[in-house]
Amino acid sequence: MLILGLDPSLSSTGWGLIRVEGNRLAHVGNGQLRTRPADPLSERLSDLASQLEALLADHAIGGAAVEEVFVNKNPQSTLKLAQARGVALMIAARAGIDIGEYAPSLVKKAVVGTGGADKAQVHAMVQRLLAGCRPAGPDAADALAVAITHAHHLASGRRIP
Amino acid sequence: MLILGLDPSLSSTGWGLIRVEGNRLAHVGNGQLRTRPADPLSERLSDLASQLEALLADHAIGGAAVEEVFVNKNPQSTLKLAQARGVALMIAARAGIDIGEYAPSLVKKAVVGTGGADKAQVHAMVQRLLAGCRPAGPDAADALAVAITHAHHLASGRRIP
Repeated sequence: MLILGLDPSLSSTGWGLIRVEGNRLAHVGNGQLRTRPADPLSERLSDLASQLEALLADHAIGGAAVEEVFVNKNPQSTLKLAQARGVALMIAARAGIDIGEYAPSLVKKAVVGTGGADKAQVHAMVQRLLAGCRPAGPDAADALAVAITHAHHLASGRRIP
Repeated sequence: MLILGLDPSLSSTGWGLIRVEGNRLAHVGNGQLRTRPADPLSERLSDLASQLEALLADHAIGGAAVEEVFVNKNPQSTLKLAQARGVALMIAARAGIDIGEYAPSLVKKAVVGTGGADKAQVHAMVQRLLAGCRPAGPDAADALAVAITHAHHLASGRRIP
């Protein structure tokens, strides 16, 4: 089963695709879907949608996951992120893919073992858990981390506490 | 020329369609695109996208407009709104429709004449400016107001100061 993790943003949406076979996880691919900052917002969202559709068309994805989002210290950045996230969730739903949502602390706990882990620890563990994986960037590593979280969730048949 | 105003939200996206002929504005239609609160977020966004696509397919829309959005006192509501807004902008862009964005104060100034007008004044003026118009709800009235704003902007060839 292929699981897609997404880390949506307007400028660069990270994606990470893993294969789950029993207890084993394998890295399939990862990358970043970029849009041009000079384009109007609506065009950038449309561009993101098209790139995501192409990605979903290339792989028989059985499940997907994203991190939950919160308003951070930069509200305008969060609004841009949320608009991109809405497009990503919508495109996945249209492709018939169920999408799990996980709090950032759950992702850290699933990948590192503690909800208080920092980004560097998460990224290091992603590369340990997925042999041969080289994340294209921090957002691709975050996407792989949420894919791993979803895999654990599916394996345990419940949300990670 | 037909101009569509949108007031996106997850539960009920207001829409208002007006016809511009020279200096004259006419009401064409308005309504609300609702999604089911019990459905998962991604399904609701997909549902909104489908309803909006159907609306755009029914009319030869020459331009569209939305209000700019800000993080308000309820960040989680704003995040839901922003995700719906991202979907709305993306669907319009895919339909080849340019979308204007206007600050709420510009909408009030365009419709009422003063940027400090309240909602009730805006809604009353919408019904005065568009003969025979009965907004389906506050969000439909807001959508008509932003459509009127866009019409003024296009007529003047510039943003309303």
